[in-house]
Amino acid sequence: MSGVIVTNPPKADAEDVRALAGYGVATVHEAMGRTGLLPGRLRPVQDGVRVAGTAVTVLSWPGDNLMIHAAVEQCGEGDILVVTTTSPSTDGMFGELFATALKRRGVRGLVIDAGVRDVAELRGMGFPAWAAAVSAQGTVKATGGSVNVPVAIGGQVVRPGDVILADDDGVVVVAREKARRTVAASEAREAKEAAARAAFLDGQLGLDRYGLRDNLAQLGVTWQAYDDHVRDGAGE
Amino acid sequence: MSGVIVTNPPKADAEDVRALAGYGVATVHEAMGRTGLLPGRLRPVQDGVRVAGTAVTVLSWPGDNLMIHAAVEQCGEGDILVVTTTSPSTDGMFGELFATALKRRGVRGLVIDAGVRDVAELRGMGFPAWAAAVSAQGTVKATGGSVNVPVAIGGQVVRPGDVILADDDGVVVVAREKARRTVAASEAREAKEAAARAAFLDGQLGLDRYGLRDNLAQLGVTWQAYDDHVRDGAGE
Amino acid sequence: MSGVIVTNPPKADAEDVRALAGYGVATVHEAMGRTGLLPGRLRPVQDGVRVAGTAVTVLSWPGDNLMIHAAVEQCGEGDILVVTTTSPSTDGMFGELFATALKRRGVRGLVIDAGVRDVAELRGMGFPAWAAAVSAQGTVKATGGSVNVPVAIGGQVVRPGDVILADDDGVVVVAREKARRTVAASEAREAKEAAARAAFLDGQLGLDRYGLRDNLAQLGVTWQAYDDHVRDGAGE
Amino acid sequence: MSGVIVTNPPKADAEDVRALAGYGVATVHEAMGRTGLLPGRLRPVQDGVRVAGTAVTVLSWPGDNLMIHAAVEQCGEGDILVVTTTSPSTDGMFGELFATALKRRGVRGLVIDAGVRDVAELRGMGFPAWAAAVSAQGTVKATGGSVNVPVAIGGQVVRPGDVILADDDGVVVVAREKARRTVAASEAREAKEAAARAAFLDGQLGLDRYGLRDNLAQLGVTWQAYDDHVRDGAGE
Amino acid sequence: MSGVIVTNPPKADAEDVRALAGYGVATVHEAMGRTGLLPGRLRPVQDGVRVAGTAVTVLSWPGDNLMIHAAVEQCGEGDILVVTTTSPSTDGMFGELFATALKRRGVRGLVIDAGVRDVAELRGMGFPAWAAAVSAQGTVKATGGSVNVPVAIGGQVVRPGDVILADDDGVVVVAREKARRTVAASEAREAKEAAARAAFLDGQLGLDRYGLRDNLAQLGVTWQAYDDHVRDGAGE
Amino acid sequence: MSGVIVTNPPKADAEDVRALAGYGVATVHEAMGRTGLLPGRLRPVQDGVRVAGTAVTVLSWPGDNLMIHAAVEQCGEGDILVVTTTSPSTDGMFGELFATALKRRGVRGLVIDAGVRDVAELRGMGFPAWAAAVSAQGTVKATGGSVNVPVAIGGQVVRPGDVILADDDGVVVVAREKARRTVAASEAREAKEAAARAAFLDGQLGLDRYGLRDNLAQLGVTWQAYDDHVRDGAGE
Repeated sequence: MSGVIVTNPPKADAEDVRALAGYGVATVHEAMGRTGLLPGRLRPVQDGVRVAGTAVTVLSWPGDNLMIHAAVEQCGEGDILVVTTTSPSTDGMFGELFATALKRRGVRGLVIDAGVRDVAELRGMGFPAWAAAVSAQGTVKATGGSVNVPVAIGGQVVRPGDVILADDDGVVVVAREKARRTVAASEAREAKEAAARAAFLDGQLGLDRYGLRDNLAQLGVTWQAYDDHVRDGAGE
Repeated sequence: MSGVIVTNPPKADAEDVRALAGYGVATVHEAMGRTGLLPGRLRPVQDGVRVAGTAVTVLSWPGDNLMIHAAVEQCGEGDILVVTTTSPSTDGMFGELFATALKRRGVRGLVIDAGVRDVAELRGMGFPAWAAAVSAQGTVKATGGSVNVPVAIGGQVVRPGDVILADDDGVVVVAREKARRTVAASEAREAKEAAARAAFLDGQLGLDRYGLRDNLAQLGVTWQAYDDHVRDGAGE
Repeated sequence: MSGVIVTNPPKADAEDVRALAGYGVATVHEAMGRTGLLPGRLRPVQDGVRVAGTAVTVLSWPGDNLMIHAAVEQCGEGDILVVTTTSPSTDGMFGELFATALKRRGVRGLVIDAGVRDVAELRGMGFPAWAAAVSAQGTVKATGGSVNVPVAIGGQVVRPGDVILADDDGVVVVAREKARRTVAASEAREAKEAAARAAFLDGQLGLDRYGLRDNLAQLGVTWQAYDDHVRDGAGE
Repeated sequence: MSGVIVTNPPKADAEDVRALAGYGVATVHEAMGRTGLLPGRLRPVQDGVRVAGTAVTVLSWPGDNLMIHAAVEQCGEGDILVVTTTSPSTDGMFGELFATALKRRGVRGLVIDAGVRDVAELRGMGFPAWAAAVSAQGTVKATGGSVNVPVAIGGQVVRPGDVILADDDGVVVVAREKARRTVAASEAREAKEAAARAAFLDGQLGLDRYGLRDNLAQLGVTWQAYDDHVRDGAGE
Repeated sequence: MSGVIVTNPPKADAEDVRALAGYGVATVHEAMGRTGLLPGRLRPVQDGVRVAGTAVTVLSWPGDNLMIHAAVEQCGEGDILVVTTTSPSTDGMFGELFATALKRRGVRGLVIDAGVRDVAELRGMGFPAWAAAVSAQGTVKATGGSVNVPVAIGGQVVRPGDVILADDDGVVVVAREKARRTVAASEAREAKEAAARAAFLDGQLGLDRYGLRDNLAQLGVTWQAYDDHVRDGAGE
Repeated sequence: MSGVIVTNPPKADAEDVRALAGYGVATVHEAMGRTGLLPGRLRPVQDGVRVAGTAVTVLSWPGDNLMIHAAVEQCGEGDILVVTTTSPSTDGMFGELFATALKRRGVRGLVIDAGVRDVAELRGMGFPAWAAAVSAQGTVKATGGSVNVPVAIGGQVVRPGDVILADDDGVVVVAREKARRTVAASEAREAKEAAARAAFLDGQLGLDRYGLRDNLAQLGVTWQAYDDHVRDGAGE
């Protein structure tokens, strides 16, 4: 795997990124027709943080962080570093020194389908990370890889310059060409949710609000009093 | 799976539920002869909360939250919603809108053998949840299931109206008919633990308090000084 | 498994233990040539705590905490209890009563390749624990095992008296005979990291600081502008 | 967990059991409205075997096979032994000696949500087993449990006397009271499948046979030529 | 997720597919610079089969096989069906009836990142499958998805018309544009391996054949007699 | 991790190794007091093979098989290669070329806590392997490690020259110093099992043979007729 470091990829519009940061991961995922979600094993190492930025992607050999060093140079203001490995690994490829270098360059956070370490320091310095594992296991700098090529993580492809949005619920990717329309769809989704929230606070049922009683009937789901249910032999 | 929504199941006595809320999950599990514990994959999404209530059960298709909508109508003051799926799923079937509707109805929390989302919002609004996963993955409303039928989660059966007790250690179910006697057994267990705690603070050993030295002897466990142990060839 | 309880094993020098507590798990692991790390499934049940002590080891039957009772008597000032089982288990073998007894004896914490319970109480009383699981599942006292014999956890051997260092990144073991030299190596490692941190804050790149551009060239990794990359058919 | 050994539970009718053995696990599961399936971690240790029998259930402590000894006495002609543990375990609780004893009593096989060992011998003697693990790990006989009480495995409850059907696809349980009607439903299901098989061999599409083109249209799924799809910006 | 069924995608050249079928998965993966491998959870349900074909891709909702019905119509001579779900699922989405329909159309096999069932029948009819799970769990036909869009499985993207090669070692994807050059590279790789095989049979060491003694020296790896090693304190 | 290649370690006596090959893994594990078992994730890639030999150990970097090349030179008649990695990996570090070289040197098999590939070829050439994974994923030769140092796998330590015994049930390690006494203990164990087998074939119960009825009584386990059990409220 000789690899390539791609420079100056196109990036999503900064204004759209800023706008997307105003919505939660779940909202944006729904607004895109329930797509774009990275796998659930990517968990935040901190609580209560939401961040959006443009992806700088890294494809590394397991147990090797050479290409993260190469990626730092490609990172700038408003980026989020997205790292994956060619085969599964939980090694702590990223720690406080990388975070120091990236923060100085204006990078907003890390998404890594492997391990991070120095998590106390990362929390302390306010550099947010979403990772598949926390592990102090160190790595070498021996094998090549690529920077800013499309990478697949779980069922999603992340390309350089795509928008990454991450919060307590996980991580979602928005294709850079779809950022603007996703902002609009997210706004619409949130308005719809606000109306539902108000209705639910007012006591309305989702069954009625979404007209689900008919669905249940068509699916053959019936209501039955407990005593009748037990008498019919559906014992416990 | 056409399904049924069972209405008005019997419920554990409210006074017993209130009394059980005074004990930890571990204590109640022990008081029942080490039974009733739901699987360890059900983890709290918040810290430091303990809650007890009566179960409203939901059996859903994976990737589908239709039956949670049906269940909301069956939920009332003092209930805890208990959701499982017909095959393993980590999708985020439950979020802040459901919590809003349930909280208004006096529901005390959620136990779900699948995923939750909007966890920051759930924490913010004080609606506690125990879940097998956190995931923003959205779901559809396309397939039937059941409400208030007995469900099996891990090695335990939860029936509607049974008591659910959950805290930082996990979730335990108490059969509604056994709630009262479990309160008494928990009280006895706690008294016994308080005495042990005092003795341990006073320096007593469990070996002596529980008479375990004889057990060890009968099991052939012996004491040996390190130097003798090494000399006997039990090298390192 | 009849088992043996070994008394008075040699211990790492208390001064060295104290010195090691001044470094993070990742630093010490690196200082030892990237060795000594216990498996990543051992996670802290609290945030922001670092502790170092000398190991008292326990090898237990799954679902059985008899040997922890036997181990308490062997524990003293400055120790850390290290528990594993003869086959995988997530049962809650350790809780607040054990912590009470151990704390009184000056024990600094717990590392267990199984489950803990009463985690709210452990956090409240300031007794730190690193565990493979949180579970309220109770255990029996029926089967023998050993105390203060070498145990293997993941890829590491822990002997009684070895140094255990644990923090938010995980757990590392330092052989008692290597404690002193590891303090020195950790100090050197930290100095090196401090210099790197300053350089990175100053804008230097790891690529340059560590001379990695040559490595990349030798590995055949090349730089390419995005437009050229796409034109060459490396589509997305 | 003091436990109880229940004797002489009711059993499904032998004729119904024999009839169910004529259908595959998938067919019977479908015939019951897609219910009754035990979790997928229960895999056969042999290929190409299908067996049906009545359940004798065992609830054991992890790492302890005492209650299997107690269960042997309760087993007879046409039974299948179903073993689970109070918390997760992969220990090899069952081996060739148990199989020898059970085979002599006319027992047809084993389903165990834990480990088996002596698998070469089991295959050689033609005693089929479905297990969550293969492990040589031995167990003790120290802790009580129960025989012929209802047990929950995954999302299913197995009661003594229920029908167990197992083949290369896994294991399904049929409540003893539903055995007869399940035979009829399985026969109907198989007839339906035979007709579909013939139609598919004849070239018919499921889309047409099941009228799914309308469903797709209602769900908004459309057909589009590849060239148009790419031209519309749905790049690769 | 409304979805689209893409018709008439470009396909890899049939001659190249035939040529690739002459090499093992490991060889082709190496020939592509160690890329293209689908995740290791995709295991064959049969032994000793190797197959190559062009991908028809399916993206399905978990627990729902509607889109496989839609995909059958898009499948033809020399294709391999590749199925994944929008979130993780082990349900048995595919069985003998689908295989019957596909076999009649000349389809060569199945790759599914979910479950299969009827595995005894699949083996019997000679329709090979690689799956993440075996499960009898049935599915519904309720939710839309897509056919012949690019899908990501593990770290790989599979596009319609790409070459799928599968054997006992797993599954590899070859981009349709790279099929020809991959044939050439595989042939070269195999020649190189044949030479190495002959040399190893002749007693040569890889250390010498690949000049690795220098690498070891540069990495600081040394040879040491056991007795010296132990005397230096590297005890056991 | 600079590493060391240790030459000429002591080895278990060849006669003892040959004798141990006459017993199954489960028998030897029991004969050693239920110790020595390697973790259950190490599964055979072939059926029906049992092999015993002396360990040549390898500690490798994940994704890197350089040290296996170094180990080949240390392997000879009657050895078994035992490979592990410094952090978890499923990469296919070992394939048919290594097997060719090892077979020529008289090596009897492979045990690897990582992945193997070319499994069809390994089966074909009769070189048995026990592995944690099957994966075609290739590896590099870039990072150092060690040969013939003690390694820990799961809860066991394997030293060079120790006896490795592997069959369909898994893998057990016997310390070289304990080989002789383990042969004797295994013979005794097998005689005891043969007697039990004969008794069970004759209809005796384990309950009686092992005097377990008293144990059950002491543990408070009671027998109860089903009808009484249900009448007492232990419903289903």
